[in-house]
Amino acid sequence: MSRIRAISEIVRKNEADAMLLTGEVNLIYATGETALEGQCIISADGTAVFVTDGRYTEVADAQLTPQGFSVLERSTVTPTGAFLQNLLAEKDIKRLLYEDDVLTVQQFAALRAQLKCELVPLAGQLAALRACKSEEEVRCIVRAQRIAEAALETLWTKLYTGMTEREAAALLNYEMALLGSEKPSFDTILLFGENTSKPHGVPSDRKLRPGDFVLADFGAVCHGYHSDMTRTAAYGSATDEMRRVYETVLAAQAAAESVAAAGVPCSEMHKAAAAVIEAAGYGEYFTHALGHSVGLEIHESPVASLRCDEPLQNGVIMTDEPGIYIAGKFGVRIEDMLLIDGDTPQNLTKAPKALRVLDAVSPADR
Amino acid sequence: MSRIRAISEIVRKNEADAMLLTGEVNLIYATGETALEGQCIISADGTAVFVTDGRYTEVADAQLTPQGFSVLERSTVTPTGAFLQNLLAEKDIKRLLYEDDVLTVQQFAALRAQLKCELVPLAGQLAALRACKSEEEVRCIVRAQRIAEAALETLWTKLYTGMTEREAAALLNYEMALLGSEKPSFDTILLFGENTSKPHGVPSDRKLRPGDFVLADFGAVCHGYHSDMTRTAAYGSATDEMRRVYETVLAAQAAAESVAAAGVPCSEMHKAAAAVIEAAGYGEYFTHALGHSVGLEIHESPVASLRCDEPLQNGVIMTDEPGIYIAGKFGVRIEDMLLIDGDTPQNLTKAPKALRVLDAVSPADR
Repeated sequence: MSRIRAISEIVRKNEADAMLLTGEVNLIYATGETALEGQCIISADGTAVFVTDGRYTEVADAQLTPQGFSVLERSTVTPTGAFLQNLLAEKDIKRLLYEDDVLTVQQFAALRAQLKCELVPLAGQLAALRACKSEEEVRCIVRAQRIAEAALETLWTKLYTGMTEREAAALLNYEMALLGSEKPSFDTILLFGENTSKPHGVPSDRKLRPGDFVLADFGAVCHGYHSDMTRTAAYGSATDEMRRVYETVLAAQAAAESVAAAGVPCSEMHKAAAAVIEAAGYGEYFTHALGHSVGLEIHESPVASLRCDEPLQNGVIMTDEPGIYIAGKFGVRIEDMLLIDGDTPQNLTKAPKALRVLDAVSPADR
Repeated sequence: MSRIRAISEIVRKNEADAMLLTGEVNLIYATGETALEGQCIISADGTAVFVTDGRYTEVADAQLTPQGFSVLERSTVTPTGAFLQNLLAEKDIKRLLYEDDVLTVQQFAALRAQLKCELVPLAGQLAALRACKSEEEVRCIVRAQRIAEAALETLWTKLYTGMTEREAAALLNYEMALLGSEKPSFDTILLFGENTSKPHGVPSDRKLRPGDFVLADFGAVCHGYHSDMTRTAAYGSATDEMRRVYETVLAAQAAAESVAAAGVPCSEMHKAAAAVIEAAGYGEYFTHALGHSVGLEIHESPVASLRCDEPLQNGVIMTDEPGIYIAGKFGVRIEDMLLIDGDTPQNLTKAPKALRVLDAVSPADR
């Protein structure tokens, strides 16, 4: 319930009576449970009510009641807004914080039409609370990351000439699931050869050939927490140009890591990486922001982009993922997760980064 | 471009100059492409602009330019709002339709602060267009459904005593991916024994035992289109009570299908199924709405719930998924997708529905 306490502090700081949470990840954050849908009302005095329907009552009763939540079942005949209005009236709630970064314009209009209290936007206050990870949250992300790394090691041994990007992606996702990942952290990006120049390409029926780069950008989920990593390996052989680009990206990544300290503006990480890539003459081929925070969502705030001048804080987990993308030829991206921790970040990613040239395996030998 | 024409008709009907699309599924609908992020502006005269960033330019140029889109790359240094304002000013757009069911309150406020034109909510007009599926869309959903059915047949042959729910779910997802599914349609629900009473339970380390029900609720995705099915099978043996509940759910499902005709209120489907379940004495154990539409999203409008009196229309694909859930014992759900087509729906689901009692397989024999 320490999170409920932290949330009720936000309520008091805003001189509100309660906070209404409906977004999937905010509900996970508040309840610690990943398998529920519903609405959570947390009051200034730290009491918490969870409203759900018959699909989730059994789980909610078992998991949330012992934590101190009051679990209420709403019949599917009763509209959510009407149910909530009764509840808020009963609890004499006059000023209610709501998730302006979760509710759509339409959902908000429907809520405003039914709730008689004053609605006050959260304006990023809960996202800010979620940005700095607790030790427990870091443990979940590290566990997800170890699963991702182990699955990638398995994939490297199972690649063969003629395997498709789709097959390789399916295998990587399956290995993560077998190791305990709840789902892929996002749609796995697994690309071969010239397709690696698409930063967010989608696995296709393109077959693996010796001389290709293989790029895997993917992650696992543990207890709702996401990991994120990218590795690029050469299959069979690597040309001098491939090696030069790879080493440039690796140096850019190290440069960003070296400036990732508490208090430093997020944009400095991007600038440090971009400077290395520009100096090597590849400036025009680094076309995206350097990184983003990860947690219960795969993309959280703050982000390591030129436009984000927010200072890095202890407990933020930021990806460090520079890339060089040469359309029609190939692309390279290398990505680690950095936990900001004073002057020197903890690199949560343990997978090796020296250029790996995998042995080409003929279909007959696999 | 027939969808662009239909969208530009909505623009004209609202006496607007253009529509702004930013939501993932609306972008797929407008462009036919599943691998893009960005913003699409469709004008009253049927011209279409796609704004994206460097991560997607290569794909957008290759796929959208031949369709007649103008593809514009926004540098990551330029905020989206500022870029769009310039573009709208250039095109003299004064009245712009926006996705009030996609943009969050916060996103909308940011947009409103930067765009100088009048912003008009779409208020469900695009969702209504998307509700009735074209033949091409039905083909995608049927293809996804065939993949799901084939994967389930494989799963039935690979279950063994001691296999965990997680392992079974991972295998089902892997088989779908190998057959060409882009991803699971939603988090696969795969439950054994007493866990089947949780309508939205999450696969755990619970091991399969003879005498369990096995419930699989899952789907595949093809070209962005989702399928959705549920089957419940007995593993090893089934008690009389299990058979009685199964037959009740099956009869309820047939009752809903028999009333699923164009012009009939959606709620009638729910009522028909609920009446069968109530007559059998299990009324209190059917705790959710009967079904929902499927398409580019797994849950679309309209829905087959007591509260939805909208008439069914030709081209709507509605799930028919009654269930009986007895906490601590077991649950049964059976789900097909029905394509509304005049007086008699087309049942898009071909997997058999007679109660299946799977042979129990010892770990040694698998």
